[in-house]
Amino acid sequence: MVIAHRQQPAVVVIGLGLIGGSLAKLLVKGGHPVVGWDPDPGTRAAAATAGVTVPETLAEAVRARPDLIVVAVPLRAVAQTMAKIADLIDDSVTITDVGSVKRQVRDAAVAAGLQDQYVGAHPMAGTELSGFAAAEAELLDDITWAVTITATTDVRHAARVLHLITKTARSRALVITDQEHDEAVARISHLPHVLATELLAIAGDAPVAGRLAAGSFRDGTRVARHGATRSQAMIEANRDVCAELVRQASHDLARLADDLAQDRDTDWFFSRGELPASDERHFASATIAWTGDWRAEAIEAGSAGRAVVSITAEHLVIESA
Amino acid sequence: MVIAHRQQPAVVVIGLGLIGGSLAKLLVKGGHPVVGWDPDPGTRAAAATAGVTVPETLAEAVRARPDLIVVAVPLRAVAQTMAKIADLIDDSVTITDVGSVKRQVRDAAVAAGLQDQYVGAHPMAGTELSGFAAAEAELLDDITWAVTITATTDVRHAARVLHLITKTARSRALVITDQEHDEAVARISHLPHVLATELLAIAGDAPVAGRLAAGSFRDGTRVARHGATRSQAMIEANRDVCAELVRQASHDLARLADDLAQDRDTDWFFSRGELPASDERHFASATIAWTGDWRAEAIEAGSAGRAVVSITAEHLVIESA
Repeated sequence: MVIAHRQQPAVVVIGLGLIGGSLAKLLVKGGHPVVGWDPDPGTRAAAATAGVTVPETLAEAVRARPDLIVVAVPLRAVAQTMAKIADLIDDSVTITDVGSVKRQVRDAAVAAGLQDQYVGAHPMAGTELSGFAAAEAELLDDITWAVTITATTDVRHAARVLHLITKTARSRALVITDQEHDEAVARISHLPHVLATELLAIAGDAPVAGRLAAGSFRDGTRVARHGATRSQAMIEANRDVCAELVRQASHDLARLADDLAQDRDTDWFFSRGELPASDERHFASATIAWTGDWRAEAIEAGSAGRAVVSITAEHLVIESA
Repeated sequence: MVIAHRQQPAVVVIGLGLIGGSLAKLLVKGGHPVVGWDPDPGTRAAAATAGVTVPETLAEAVRARPDLIVVAVPLRAVAQTMAKIADLIDDSVTITDVGSVKRQVRDAAVAAGLQDQYVGAHPMAGTELSGFAAAEAELLDDITWAVTITATTDVRHAARVLHLITKTARSRALVITDQEHDEAVARISHLPHVLATELLAIAGDAPVAGRLAAGSFRDGTRVARHGATRSQAMIEANRDVCAELVRQASHDLARLADDLAQDRDTDWFFSRGELPASDERHFASATIAWTGDWRAEAIEAGSAGRAVVSITAEHLVIESA
């Protein structure tokens, strides 16, 4: 037995907003004890009412002798939160997060001296809402998480995070690098937010346009109508990757504008683009042994779109090709 | 009494795709006789089964002595269809359409010699689906139509189209100019299609991105995943207006890319943009007399986002400010 994976880890969730709150509610719903903490007293009171064990201070929460601490605070607060936690724990505690960018969070973990016990995580779920009141266990039900590791990620810490996702949360984990994650979310999340923001700005508040607006407009601006500040924080935290994609979009649109203005063919623009691969997969049991080069093998599978669906004491079990 | 508005006009619908088919089904459902025609024999058979009177030829359909002909063929076929119709009718017959651009359709009406009897119309409804099988009366239920007129639009023809929309179809009509319409739909429909197409092209079919794609991505590409050809036709038919908006988007994105790459402030980008005015209006009875300068007054109301909700023999009834 390489890892002791069956024991339910004691989990502390720091930050009880939409994602942290949903995770805490999921744990409560599954009958797992969970300690939670949030800087907002009203949120702490609501979480306590919902069955979460809520101490008064961050220090008390972290001293609850957890196996796993989930840092679920906003991106701007991650570095400060990790620095505080680092002073209160030893290196046996696994640290993970739920942030929508991963390189910046890993940088924060390194700055706090937590790099050897940090495993990145990002549940691919969300709504325009925020806060504990909007949180619900179902938000995280049967979803895909990204889990990011490095060439030196510790096997016990990785196993705890994968156990939380695949066993406790009954979801699946795509194991990839920070860079792969940040490039992928720039394409599927950050660029959509940029384009929705631009669309809303150009449509403006003209009475005719507003009155005639139909489905495609509402869909295209949904993410921008709620939480432009949150969009901005995500995109600025992933500046370099986003800058490149936004520049590519700008170039393509400039060419299209020229071709439209000069009555030229626009097939090159409209005939591109394929739908990304579907979520539907065969869930068969390809396995990766913890004793082998599991990091490289798990990343290879993740890069091909194959997720970890469970773990055992000996193996990671992944979707077949 | 300026117009004889209470008499149910005899309607012919040419082209029984998603919109034309839905209008025909709505008329059948309301107990109104409707003649329909489509070049596709299978569509004609399906429409006949659904209760539409369907002759074998376009000429027979047009000779059914209609008061109103709705040209609901694809944009690329409008000019040819109008030319054929023009040879078969006199100037007492009202011609309207359902096209998603209006200047091009009016040009076709002028080319066919139908300019004095043409009133533009565009129901703001749609799905990714197409064809008579996808058509349903409910698609046009309680929606906003754009109705486009000129400084010389004939009162009887305008009244017939407004009667069809507000009385027969129980919807409302925003009376505006062709130019106002084409600028508004470029903002709320054509530009969203362009950005969705670009988003899908940039996201590509990378396995990681495809696997992690969540709601905002699916929403942002919905219109591009279905019917890129239809998007292209709409946008090319509205080239000049679209070119200008696409160029504006390109400029904004180029500036954003620079600011992201150089770690500069991006507030200017994310703090713009207000949601267009809501659909919610007070439906009180402001009126415009047919005997006055109804064209200018209706366009003034339409430009302010106030729609025609009914007509009487003496008045257009519009939403109050």
